Amino acid sequence: MDSVNDLIARGSELGAQLRVDSIRCTTAANSGHPTSSMSAADLMAVLLIKYLKYDWDHPHNPNNDRLIFSKGHASPLLYAMYKAAGVITDEELLTLRRFGSRLEGHPKPLQSAESHGVPHGLPWVDTATGSLGQGLPVGVGMALCGKYVDKLPFTVWVLLGDSEMAEGSIWEAFDKAGHYKLGNVIAILDMNRLGQRGPTDLGWDSPVYAERARAFGWHAIEIDGHDIGAIDHAYAEARAQTGQPTCIVAKTVKGSGVSLVADKNGWHGKPLNPDQAKAAIAELGGERHITISVAKPEALQPAPQPTARALELPVYEVGAEEAVRKAFGDALAAVGANRPEMVVLDGEVSNSTFTEEFNKAFPDRFFEIYIAEQQLVAAAVGFGILRKTAFAATFAAFFSRAFDQIRMAAVSNANIRLCGTHPGVSIGEDGPSQMALEDIAMMRAVHGSTVLYPCDANQTAHLVATMAGLPGISYLRATRAKTTVIYPPTETFPIGGSKTLRRSDTDHVAIIAAGITLHESLRAYEQLKSEGILVRVIDAYSVKPIDAETLHEAARVTEGRLVVVEDHWCEGGLGDAILEVFADTPETPLRMIRLAVHAMPTSGTPAQLMNAAGIDAEHVAQAVRECL
Amino acid sequence: MDSVNDLIARGSELGAQLRVDSIRCTTAANSGHPTSSMSAADLMAVLLIKYLKYDWDHPHNPNNDRLIFSKGHASPLLYAMYKAAGVITDEELLTLRRFGSRLEGHPKPLQSAESHGVPHGLPWVDTATGSLGQGLPVGVGMALCGKYVDKLPFTVWVLLGDSEMAEGSIWEAFDKAGHYKLGNVIAILDMNRLGQRGPTDLGWDSPVYAERARAFGWHAIEIDGHDIGAIDHAYAEARAQTGQPTCIVAKTVKGSGVSLVADKNGWHGKPLNPDQAKAAIAELGGERHITISVAKPEALQPAPQPTARALELPVYEVGAEEAVRKAFGDALAAVGANRPEMVVLDGEVSNSTFTEEFNKAFPDRFFEIYIAEQQLVAAAVGFGILRKTAFAATFAAFFSRAFDQIRMAAVSNANIRLCGTHPGVSIGEDGPSQMALEDIAMMRAVHGSTVLYPCDANQTAHLVATMAGLPGISYLRATRAKTTVIYPPTETFPIGGSKTLRRSDTDHVAIIAAGITLHESLRAYEQLKSEGILVRVIDAYSVKPIDAETLHEAARVTEGRLVVVEDHWCEGGLGDAILEVFADTPETPLRMIRLAVHAMPTSGTPAQLMNAAGIDAEHVAQAVRECL
Repeated sequence: MDSVNDLIARGSELGAQLRVDSIRCTTAANSGHPTSSMSAADLMAVLLIKYLKYDWDHPHNPNNDRLIFSKGHASPLLYAMYKAAGVITDEELLTLRRFGSRLEGHPKPLQSAESHGVPHGLPWVDTATGSLGQGLPVGVGMALCGKYVDKLPFTVWVLLGDSEMAEGSIWEAFDKAGHYKLGNVIAILDMNRLGQRGPTDLGWDSPVYAERARAFGWHAIEIDGHDIGAIDHAYAEARAQTGQPTCIVAKTVKGSGVSLVADKNGWHGKPLNPDQAKAAIAELGGERHITISVAKPEALQPAPQPTARALELPVYEVGAEEAVRKAFGDALAAVGANRPEMVVLDGEVSNSTFTEEFNKAFPDRFFEIYIAEQQLVAAAVGFGILRKTAFAATFAAFFSRAFDQIRMAAVSNANIRLCGTHPGVSIGEDGPSQMALEDIAMMRAVHGSTVLYPCDANQTAHLVATMAGLPGISYLRATRAKTTVIYPPTETFPIGGSKTLRRSDTDHVAIIAAGITLHESLRAYEQLKSEGILVRVIDAYSVKPIDAETLHEAARVTEGRLVVVEDHWCEGGLGDAILEVFADTPETPLRMIRLAVHAMPTSGTPAQLMNAAGIDAEHVAQAVRECL
Repeated sequence: MDSVNDLIARGSELGAQLRVDSIRCTTAANSGHPTSSMSAADLMAVLLIKYLKYDWDHPHNPNNDRLIFSKGHASPLLYAMYKAAGVITDEELLTLRRFGSRLEGHPKPLQSAESHGVPHGLPWVDTATGSLGQGLPVGVGMALCGKYVDKLPFTVWVLLGDSEMAEGSIWEAFDKAGHYKLGNVIAILDMNRLGQRGPTDLGWDSPVYAERARAFGWHAIEIDGHDIGAIDHAYAEARAQTGQPTCIVAKTVKGSGVSLVADKNGWHGKPLNPDQAKAAIAELGGERHITISVAKPEALQPAPQPTARALELPVYEVGAEEAVRKAFGDALAAVGANRPEMVVLDGEVSNSTFTEEFNKAFPDRFFEIYIAEQQLVAAAVGFGILRKTAFAATFAAFFSRAFDQIRMAAVSNANIRLCGTHPGVSIGEDGPSQMALEDIAMMRAVHGSTVLYPCDANQTAHLVATMAGLPGISYLRATRAKTTVIYPPTETFPIGGSKTLRRSDTDHVAIIAAGITLHESLRAYEQLKSEGILVRVIDAYSVKPIDAETLHEAARVTEGRLVVVEDHWCEGGLGDAILEVFADTPETPLRMIRLAVHAMPTSGTPAQLMNAAGIDAEHVAQAVRECL
């Protein structure tokens, strides 16, 4: 164990190096956030020297502590720590923000060339940050995994900025970390008083931050964030808390150590020019190239997982009435038996999303996140980082609350599976606040996403099983109402596929639908058939990627006469996904009629609202007749 | 003034009536939330009898107190209050949730037939609720307006549910209400212990809720929410607080007054059947039809507004280099001089969005919301309700944080104007966390929205002036980089228009772009012209609504050879907006090449990243050549 004086000496030197390196790399880049890095340099120096337990050669070692820069713009400091840990060279440090460098403006996890064109990102970054207020919530997910699933004693260290304490997502994370008594979370609040455009809401008011943390069930410690001894004591005290998370409120100086910028407004996100940098580095005692031997964690085994049982999906009789969301819940339980690493999270609506079926089967792997959708998604991301197969569910409408988290999950290359129930006007009486009418648009616009929209229970079960094995972000849109089972349990549903349910060689028109409107389309088919009109009916259950080949063929046969019907706004939905297929098809002129929701819905029965929106069988049949 | 005993007698009777009516209308509807209404019945009875000041005939009277059911699912209680106030009949009450009824499943403001097909909603509802955690934030916006702009002494009463206290948006609202010392906000927390699927996170732990409220700068009072006298005292005490908002933590019983359902799990969102209802009504002492004469507010004048000056938009010289976001800020200041009712809000990035220009000119009408994007949008909605022309700005990427608020603003038929800066890969070094690549998809999928994407400073100024007068939700996408001014200040830019910047009668291909890619397209034009290839270049600055006529003509002239280029993911963006125009155009076969962002971006210079994404002049020119 270092003596106190030794730690103070080493910590001060390393703190100075981290400042110098934060200045050097941002000056070289001519952009970035040196002053936001310098305020936290002493905090990170002590962490690296004495507290962090990390196996740099094996970032996925399940015993590793995790370090998340929730204030992602302090990336120069993070990269300077990597240099100090000896995992990047000084030369690489100076590539910050350059095209082709791994050291991006904000931290990003390692991503393969396969999914992103070129490999980039860093193996020691767990989650992308830069959208404030998102690092802690992801850390809470990882801590839930550590405490309740893997049962390993690693610590999740999160560096928080003071500006981001205004984000509601931070308080969702404080709430859940307090509720689940996550003693393995230590949040270090770099209270440097200055935000991007001036003083923060609370400035240096440590007691208020501490009071808020305590009110949310946390242990709080107020310190001077440049006092190495105080930092040391605080970390030791925090690590001794096993029954509650700790927030260390560290009073710091933005740009500390350099008189030109210390505690000065107007220096956010601004590099020093070369002359200023030279003077600043001199003031900090010059360049250093100290390397720290970071302690490795003890090699412990994660809690044993139950034995995987063979996958036995639920089966539903053709012709029976069952809700897709119920099949989702049933399938979760079935897939969960097959995948002992699977976890399910819900936003206090498990009796509506039917994740309660999983909870009944595997209560130890079910996490109630309450009504906090941002935290719901962020926690799923956290579980995914620790190699768990994470599903999260709530009403489809309320995933819009977490769009930024989903967007950032894509930047992180995270693996999460979302299920949104109760989409569209077909939910009926509850009215538009509960109706997702933009979720397909939202989820299609997520990088690398998969968007699925089943129409029956057997299809749902198969898609849930497939989602469990999918990389990236996948989304299942699960209708509220019971629908008729139309597929036998043996049918398979590949991603990117579709099902042509009705066809002849002389179809005049093709109806393309998914989910609830597929059933309306089948009804329209029967009506039209009785009138002697033959139409093709295609179930586009895979909205993204979509089955271009089948759509092209349908357009060829029908000379472009397509009727698309969806329980969603027109913009961004199934219709747009289909139009994208036909952007460059001079051989197939399009005569598409799009039935979608155009007016703001009200309350009413599902049948009334689908009729009012013009997306029921009657309107589908009429659209077909107009096509002819 | 009523004596205490009289108030207790009247309050108890009215509380019973509100319970009975909540049961009657939900049983008639066979859906809805009676028990969530019953817990707050006594709280609302005392409010109606003694505290609320409201002019029912003039809902827009600026002196009216405002009443927001943040727990929108308690709408039966709200409608029962309307009956007790004599503004709806008992007969209408029993139309709850029926198709065509104004009494929807969740409260919705009055909406004209013009924008929504049929008129619906209620004149006394200010903002749609039903997505939890959104009512209080909107109320904070209204309270900011009352305290700082109109300077009128009305009170914003907000009924909160306990489940929604888990939403981060609630804590953004607590933070801002505390910061701005909004003594005109009284939040009544209906702590009934039971959420949708079981006990809430905190149950009946009043002290914790009170501690959290106090930590956020609120006055807190803990009471028994069924004790009429205690409620009376709490309201009086709350109204006496002028320097800070008050949260009344009211311990209540879900389904109170009816033994079948009181404090029982499993009764959320579930009506009593007719027999159960009959017994319950008997237990509550039978039907009542008390009418309350609600006190009207004093007739005070809002603070006088400055005199409107003639609109003098900033002008920029053709050929100069200026950032669209700077022109946005300049134009805000100019339009603000012309519109004394205009307010601007920002998410602590006013030196990046340039809303600081408005702040310099009109500091009394500028509101710093700090980094709390949900509150940013909700506050703008609140100002809009009180007839202010509200603009809100932050980085485009971070509006994804508030997508649910924007979605609900559309349900509310709210009038707000959003400006998102720093979209796309063209921001450069900061990397993908800061790049909005899905904002057009998101904003197009908002009901009734207008989506604008200017490419130069003069165009921006005109569009900002136009937005100020637009109803509904409008969005301006404002590029970070400086771009060349190409339009003279005299040019006009109607909504739904476009500008054809280059054309001949023999154009082989039309390039369609907006914003930053318009400039790349003009560069491509010059290159192609030097090669003898004539192309049309269209500036689609109005992405929604889009100029279908001009696009159709371009497709006719070029035989469908269109090149669309955008700094956005392919899905949901400009390309999809254009494809929608050609869904039914058999006469014009499409040969469209779409240039958009496909791989996850990294850091780099704007030029490097636009080249890597394949959306710069070089790629545009190459796409044109491929078209030929």
